[in-house]
This record gives sequence, C-alpha cells and structure tokens, in this order.
Amino acid sequence: MREGGTYAIDPALRADEALGYWTSADKESFVAEDEGGIVGTYYLRPNQAGGGRHVCNCGYVTRAEARGRGVARAMCEHSLAYAASRGYRAMQFNFVVSTNTHAVRLWQALGFEIVGRIPEAFCHPEHAYVDAFVMHRFL
Amino acid sequence: MREGGTYAIDPALRADEALGYWTSADKESFVAEDEGGIVGTYYLRPNQAGGGRHVCNCGYVTRAEARGRGVARAMCEHSLAYAASRGYRAMQFNFVVSTNTHAVRLWQALGFEIVGRIPEAFCHPEHAYVDAFVMHRFL
Repeated sequence: MREGGTYAIDPALRADEALGYWTSADKESFVAEDEGGIVGTYYLRPNQAGGGRHVCNCGYVTRAEARGRGVARAMCEHSLAYAASRGYRAMQFNFVVSTNTHAVRLWQALGFEIVGRIPEAFCHPEHAYVDAFVMHRFL
Repeated sequence: MREGGTYAIDPALRADEALGYWTSADKESFVAEDEGGIVGTYYLRPNQAGGGRHVCNCGYVTRAEARGRGVARAMCEHSLAYAASRGYRAMQFNFVVSTNTHAVRLWQALGFEIVGRIPEAFCHPEHAYVDAFVMHRFL
C-alpha cells in the first residue's frame, strides 16, 4: 500500500490505521499462511447494503517477499468459495487500477469480467492519471 | 429510502441511523430550501482515498412532496459547481439503479455518462434483480 500504485488508500496511513481499515466491523478478514508465516491477507464484505447486499467485495494483499508464488490466486479462490458458502451471488471489485496488469489478468483468469472503466480515476505515482476498472463475476 | 427502490441502503434504517449515514465525517451535507422549508438534501465526499481522492461522489434525496419541481436537478447543479470549486476533477455515482430511469435521464442530461453496468447488482422490491450503473462526468 505504501507504494501507492494499486490501492486507493492514503499511502501515508499508519500501521494501526491500515489494520483498522482492513479489519473494520463490516469486514471478515483472513490471513494466508505458508510454513507458519503470514504471506497475505484478504477481507470480504458486502459491497452495498440493502438491495445490494447479495454482492460481496474483497481486497487482497500479498507480502512483498511472497510475490510470484500464487498467494493472491489462492486467496481469491478461497474467497470465491467462502463467499458462495455465505450465500453471496456475485463478487465485485470496485477499483482495479488499470496499470496493475498482473492483478487484472489474474482476476480475468479467475472468471472476472471488466464491467466498467472509470476514466482517469487513479493518480498513479509514476503514470499520473490512469483508468480504473470495475470487475465482476457471479458465484 | 424506505421504499427501497433507489438506494442500496437498508430500508429499515431508523431516522437517526439514516441521518448518521448522510452526515458522516467523510461527507459534506447540504439542504435545499424552498420558501423556508427543506425540500431535499445531498452529500458530497471523496469517492476514494489516496490516489482516487480527486473524484467525488454525491447522493441526493428529494422530499416526496417536492418531486417533479427540479429539486434534484438544482442540487446536482449546485454540487457540480461546488465540487469544481473544491478542486475535484470528476464526479462519480457508484450505484444508479437501472430501473430508476428518471434519475438516469437526469444525470445524462447533466453530462454524466454510463461507464459501467453491474449485472443484477440490486434486488428491487418490485422487479427482483436489476442492473446498476456506474455514472461519471469530468468537472
């Protein structure tokens, strides 16, 4: 998150603020372990309330040292199965930064479709204003 | 909101909970007055944090008795001008229920474009699962 290139979150958040965000009352939060160490975390929450609460939203973060080992894929697969077991009908990502091509391709490989494109929605630290995608899949 | 056909908000919210939602710390909230009575209200907030904070989000509600008199249009026009004065670069609506054709047409008339369509995102009390639009315009 501190790199500021993937999440629309203040990169200057303190660790306790980031933890508060990631584990707020509306979210269920999980960790991914490998040989006893935590290599990633994700949260799952209803994306909207009322008539929109059958669609969930997730966020995933992989420990920097554990990148390239399928941690995000494993977490997303877990979240898809868990969300279905909880009765959600679909999963939606509201803000996938378009330059985060690794994530976009992974979500597409896992069945997500780009259902929206928000022009210049993200001010990237290197690329300036870039688009963000809304991605969705039924469960 | 109690009708449950336009906002992804729990229709059973108590008045104090709805007021808390509408005036939470991340929002600036306004009222529209006509001859001294309140005929509508809207809020404005950053739609995302960090690299997404240059795009704002608004919600509008018109008093039932004041419908059809241009209150929503007046509030949206005010919000567009106010948002520009605050330095926002764009405005985004995350969840416009597709069956709310009056709102969709009004936002389009005010320069918004549909940039996303989320399938079956809203469980409408009359129409069951209907799509929701993401709408956007630059300021």
